[in-house]
Amino acid sequence: MSSDAYDELTERYEKVVAVHDASGVLNWDQQTKMPSGGTPARSKQLSTLSSVGHDLLTDDQVGELLDELDGETLDGEEAAVVREIRRDYERAANVPEELVEELTETQSEAQPIWQQAKAEDDFDHFAPTLERLRDLHVERAEHVDPDVEPYVVMHEDSLPYIDIETVEGVFADLREALVPLIDDLKDANADLAAPFTEGEYPEDDQMALSERVLDMLNYDRDQGRLDLSPHPFTSGNQFDCRVTTRFKDDPIKGLMATIHEYGHASYNLGLPQEHFGSPLGLSLGSGVHESQSRFWENHVGRSRAFWELFLPEMQEHFPHLDGVSVDEAYEGANQLYPENLIRVEADELTYHMHIILRFETGREFVRGEIDVDEIPHVWNDRMDEYLGVVPETDTNGCLQDIHWTGRFAAFQGYTIGSVLAAQLDAAMREEVDGVDEKIRNGEFEPLLGWMRENVHQHGMRYPSDELIERATGEPLTAEYFIEYVEEKFGELYGV
Amino acid sequence: MSSDAYDELTERYEKVVAVHDASGVLNWDQQTKMPSGGTPARSKQLSTLSSVGHDLLTDDQVGELLDELDGETLDGEEAAVVREIRRDYERAANVPEELVEELTETQSEAQPIWQQAKAEDDFDHFAPTLERLRDLHVERAEHVDPDVEPYVVMHEDSLPYIDIETVEGVFADLREALVPLIDDLKDANADLAAPFTEGEYPEDDQMALSERVLDMLNYDRDQGRLDLSPHPFTSGNQFDCRVTTRFKDDPIKGLMATIHEYGHASYNLGLPQEHFGSPLGLSLGSGVHESQSRFWENHVGRSRAFWELFLPEMQEHFPHLDGVSVDEAYEGANQLYPENLIRVEADELTYHMHIILRFETGREFVRGEIDVDEIPHVWNDRMDEYLGVVPETDTNGCLQDIHWTGRFAAFQGYTIGSVLAAQLDAAMREEVDGVDEKIRNGEFEPLLGWMRENVHQHGMRYPSDELIERATGEPLTAEYFIEYVEEKFGELYGV
Repeated sequence: MSSDAYDELTERYEKVVAVHDASGVLNWDQQTKMPSGGTPARSKQLSTLSSVGHDLLTDDQVGELLDELDGETLDGEEAAVVREIRRDYERAANVPEELVEELTETQSEAQPIWQQAKAEDDFDHFAPTLERLRDLHVERAEHVDPDVEPYVVMHEDSLPYIDIETVEGVFADLREALVPLIDDLKDANADLAAPFTEGEYPEDDQMALSERVLDMLNYDRDQGRLDLSPHPFTSGNQFDCRVTTRFKDDPIKGLMATIHEYGHASYNLGLPQEHFGSPLGLSLGSGVHESQSRFWENHVGRSRAFWELFLPEMQEHFPHLDGVSVDEAYEGANQLYPENLIRVEADELTYHMHIILRFETGREFVRGEIDVDEIPHVWNDRMDEYLGVVPETDTNGCLQDIHWTGRFAAFQGYTIGSVLAAQLDAAMREEVDGVDEKIRNGEFEPLLGWMRENVHQHGMRYPSDELIERATGEPLTAEYFIEYVEEKFGELYGV
Repeated sequence: MSSDAYDELTERYEKVVAVHDASGVLNWDQQTKMPSGGTPARSKQLSTLSSVGHDLLTDDQVGELLDELDGETLDGEEAAVVREIRRDYERAANVPEELVEELTETQSEAQPIWQQAKAEDDFDHFAPTLERLRDLHVERAEHVDPDVEPYVVMHEDSLPYIDIETVEGVFADLREALVPLIDDLKDANADLAAPFTEGEYPEDDQMALSERVLDMLNYDRDQGRLDLSPHPFTSGNQFDCRVTTRFKDDPIKGLMATIHEYGHASYNLGLPQEHFGSPLGLSLGSGVHESQSRFWENHVGRSRAFWELFLPEMQEHFPHLDGVSVDEAYEGANQLYPENLIRVEADELTYHMHIILRFETGREFVRGEIDVDEIPHVWNDRMDEYLGVVPETDTNGCLQDIHWTGRFAAFQGYTIGSVLAAQLDAAMREEVDGVDEKIRNGEFEPLLGWMRENVHQHGMRYPSDELIERATGEPLTAEYFIEYVEEKFGELYGV
């Protein structure tokens, strides 16, 4: 039963969402279209919108309305709306404004320090800043919820409703299965075809190829667009959701980046339009979002069926590929690089060891179990243990990610997304007949339709853990992902 | 002497400016890049930013700070800052919120009604809405300043510090000089060359030509960019100011639109960067802004010297123009169309009669001297009197401009801009030697430099009327414009 308090609360929250969305547009513009000289004005615009959005959310009135609604009987959707607004409010309102400002300032000061440290391979230059950031984040976490371990609060910021015990369990299963699998695959010394490492791939032609794959995936250009940016990202809502990509020598990287971002966009565009501005029209946290991008990138874009469909397109854009077979293309799209040191360049399989390393090391540091100056060797030891390689520099080790200047528990969503993508893929195949055949024929609607029905349309109606159970019939598990990579890479590498 | 109250006031105002600027980016995006389906979300974002900006400006604290500063001794710059913030505050805070909302809603409802009325040539369909808008605007004006005639309040909204008596005087001088001049030019039956009405001008080539002219004008792409939009406009600040253009069959239209918008951008980019967010870093009202666009469009882009410089460029882009002479190109860029009925398609000379007509008719309507249903015949009578043509439909008459759905005193800035452009041009030529020679050689820096020094760098330091006197040595006058058009068109048409 809707009430005045409920209506006023949701009206206020719509403004919070609209301001946040406006920031998203400004950010998209900054990454894709803004002239380089615009930075000082843009920074001021963004910091103002951020503080305005914070003020709207943490207004005393919002707290009073939430108190008022505490006793009321709400139906399922309304209860979900109030639950999510309350969560958002409490995580913001409980933190003193000066602390928020200090964190923001320290983070922005940290960027150039981190950049210099990385450029000069000088961890000591960054260490005091990293320590200071850790202390501020811990202080913030203690304000948000003094009864919970600070790292767990940080975890909940980035992966709401997927509790840390679940993540620990999933990561333990992955570690147990992937470390020996990676060893076996390395030992196999298989010589996979690498057809895309030869020939020229001009940027314009790669762009045309990316536009083509988006056409085939039915990405509606009345609701989105493709642009270039230094790092691929997705920005927008259920009316207008845009993707970006970037191109390297190897055309698979750009193509997969485009498909990955399409997956993110498909989620946002599948949110109900009538709930724009409400939690019912917003997506769940990073884990579920990443499941959508990883599903389209890996379970579709890196599948054998996809390459049966797509190789002729690729050959049309790059005629020198004319003699390449589907098997060779499929192998080329699934190369492993276990010797790689850099997370963002890692393959579908070894990637997760980079994440587990960050999860474990980040938590130990936040807990104070290791000191800041121990990070480099803890990092390197884990690289050795998990991937059998040791970075020779911190630049290629613990200084590689910019994320460390901001958030300490921001990585697990990526791996949870992959794990969930495999679980959703398996559940979909129980209900949708002939998924591979459909991919081979370019019939993607039934796949998207299943995601729409089971994931997108609900917005934040159900917490992530509940959504996962509703969609797949069981709680989050690493089982399907492990099965998928063992089968796929076992076959590819003859193990 | 700076005080705490002053610092807090300016800090608050910076946020108002930043939110306004953010809206500008969203609007630019909507006109140039946004997928068509994005409108519902964008409308919500923009209306939220508008209400947030209004709330920040009209906060009680702002009023209290202004009261506090009332007694303080401020230096010249500080006094100017407080004067402009006070002006902005009072024009917003004195209007009841419900009235602002009603106006906004009525205006947005008016758009489709006006569109339909225009499409169906049915003024009666629009008349009640127009009357309602007039009443609401009068009510608003009475809140802003109950001691002043409502139309004058509206005039001051759009042309601050250029008082209505000055505008009346300028318009009377123009009417007196231009009506007989237009008659004489018509009677001359001169046959000006029209080299640009023949041949094909593909959009891509026109775009390349517009980019080229912006290069020649030293438009810095690290601080701006050129895009297409349905109506040309300029958007941005001293760090990032972007222009748009659009192309028609006749390449002069697009080229002049680009140069015109460059003029606007040159003003914003000349505002002091260190005063971003303060009135000292904001441009003056529409009259002075329009003087900059009209100076570059007309006094540079339509000059004979410019065509000596630019014709070879044009011929490089469009080889079929190879046999055209500078005289022919100059004539082609200065065609008059006295029989034209549409303001936005009018030429440099007859344009102003369209504006004077709107000024006079708008004021009579706002004053209640004519009823809404008298507008069509009053309009047509004036067209006959001023230009010797009578629209056969209201579609091409009083229904042509969308502005009538919003503001009744929004047009005079265009003509004041042209008049001021001529006055600034004359003053510049007193101080800068060989302006034509410089244009002929593509040396535009001294012209821009003079504008920077005399106009741009001051921001809102001086009210418009004072700035005009400081820059030109005398108050605003129609004299220079009349001299300019009599000489230019007299020579072109052999009168």
